Amino acid sequence: MRESDLLAHIELATRELGTAFPHVVAGPGHDCAVVAAGSGECTLLKVDQLVSGIHFRPYPDTPLDLIARKAIARPLSDIAACGGTPRAALVAATLPADFRAAPELFDALSKWSRHWSCPLVGGDTAILPVSGSRAHLTLAVTVLGLPHPARGPLLRVGARAGDAVYVTGSLGGSLDPATGLGRHLTFEPRLDEARWLCDTLGEHLHAMMDISDGLGRDAARLAAASGVRMALEAARLPLSAGITQWRRAAADGEDYELLFTAPADAALPPQCPRTGTLITRIGTATQGRGCTIRDPSGIEVNASDLGWDSAGA
Amino acid sequence: MRESDLLAHIELATRELGTAFPHVVAGPGHDCAVVAAGSGECTLLKVDQLVSGIHFRPYPDTPLDLIARKAIARPLSDIAACGGTPRAALVAATLPADFRAAPELFDALSKWSRHWSCPLVGGDTAILPVSGSRAHLTLAVTVLGLPHPARGPLLRVGARAGDAVYVTGSLGGSLDPATGLGRHLTFEPRLDEARWLCDTLGEHLHAMMDISDGLGRDAARLAAASGVRMALEAARLPLSAGITQWRRAAADGEDYELLFTAPADAALPPQCPRTGTLITRIGTATQGRGCTIRDPSGIEVNASDLGWDSAGA
Repeated sequence: MRESDLLAHIELATRELGTAFPHVVAGPGHDCAVVAAGSGECTLLKVDQLVSGIHFRPYPDTPLDLIARKAIARPLSDIAACGGTPRAALVAATLPADFRAAPELFDALSKWSRHWSCPLVGGDTAILPVSGSRAHLTLAVTVLGLPHPARGPLLRVGARAGDAVYVTGSLGGSLDPATGLGRHLTFEPRLDEARWLCDTLGEHLHAMMDISDGLGRDAARLAAASGVRMALEAARLPLSAGITQWRRAAADGEDYELLFTAPADAALPPQCPRTGTLITRIGTATQGRGCTIRDPSGIEVNASDLGWDSAGA
Repeated sequence: MRESDLLAHIELATRELGTAFPHVVAGPGHDCAVVAAGSGECTLLKVDQLVSGIHFRPYPDTPLDLIARKAIARPLSDIAACGGTPRAALVAATLPADFRAAPELFDALSKWSRHWSCPLVGGDTAILPVSGSRAHLTLAVTVLGLPHPARGPLLRVGARAGDAVYVTGSLGGSLDPATGLGRHLTFEPRLDEARWLCDTLGEHLHAMMDISDGLGRDAARLAAASGVRMALEAARLPLSAGITQWRRAAADGEDYELLFTAPADAALPPQCPRTGTLITRIGTATQGRGCTIRDPSGIEVNASDLGWDSAGA
């Protein structure tokens, strides 16, 4: 089965979760789940896994330090997408029987989790009974975060007709096909930019998500979750250095940039004043359904055809 | 490397975690991590993974429903060990390429998580590029819980010289070696018993953990964490039906019973009045170090030699 079919099954089966469990503010289908603690204070929760041979070329082709960095950074990108601050991480690792660098891997995970103020507080390790290229090193990282104290948790729902659609940073070229390295291993989770947007826009920051499966597919998801139509302009897309074709930028899988909407009259600067990261208006939300990207010749392309079909609920 | 060596490396490296991150009340080395939210309210966090070929015989030898049940029940046993109430779960799944039952597996996970009032709020799925017996189905389940409102989070530290040592239920025989089935797949996380103990004993419930690697090894861990010596009596161990040798009961890997200490004059009934589960005094904590089990002939055995060397921090 396609992973998107499994996701659709899960989202349908969990749509009424908040009725039976009122402390579940947001369940599957958002970048993070939102769960209310006993006092009503909300926490953000996210799990993301990194599998050798899928998300990175097996060690030692990919250095341990970059494997660990990406494993921690991916769920932190989702915490950023919800406007949150990370608090703690847990790692479940499955290691091939012949993997000899477990302490070094733990040290690298520990280093990067501390770097982003998200200390490793627990974990679980299993040694697979197999070795070699068919044994997959897997790191499942769960992160707990706190929402922005004033804005509260940001979700994919909330974009409104009339909103401007923005993206941070630049798009495309995250993977160097020759080496398997590249920005997909070294991206910076947009935690500072998300916090600045929450501080600055408050309730006017209507909806946000991170781009992990391609701008096209992810923008279509945000539009669908919010119940609006989104019209994006190919000519406006901020292309990464070396990228000349907008389609490559819109279909790249692992940008880990923020996609968000705010009222069209909210004056945003071209860069985040705290970090210098680009902020680019790439389109508009209107009444209707679907998401299109208009190419420079005026042809409209269905955005959801551009990107990866991976699973994560 | 042995998994216990990796655990020792991790515990040493994270011992000072609370100094740099004061919101980390308890990190690696306890059944659950304890993290304070913004308001100071504590949450319990635990990740546990279930790997085919290690923790259960591969599907279809083990029915999907029992795989899902065990995947959810294991981290809930740790929430019970900390005296907590489960609130939400996340699942990261890696599936062999030829696994055809993903929706049914999700439905079973969803059923059992709701059964224990711990709804699935998020997850991540990866399809491995390999099939067959070398492709391992893995389920990493993270659970968030709330500590007992009056007792607060229970940890392994806290046992005192003079305490009586207790265990719930009966020990041994969790795995039927002929079929691979047995109580290791169908055990009941001792959530109700833990809550009753917290309600009844309050601050006098000094230390608690769950038995997942064998009574011997786990009792030695509790004694070491608390800085006491524990002297257990083989003749007092509550043996499961069909178990005649105390060593088998003390070395069985997957009892998922509670091991706890309280003052010797705390009068506990022989059964939990809410559930009927046995409560048995099996020994005493004294000043000193180490943990022994005295066999019926008077010989003292080093408890830490009885059990499994698996990893989980």
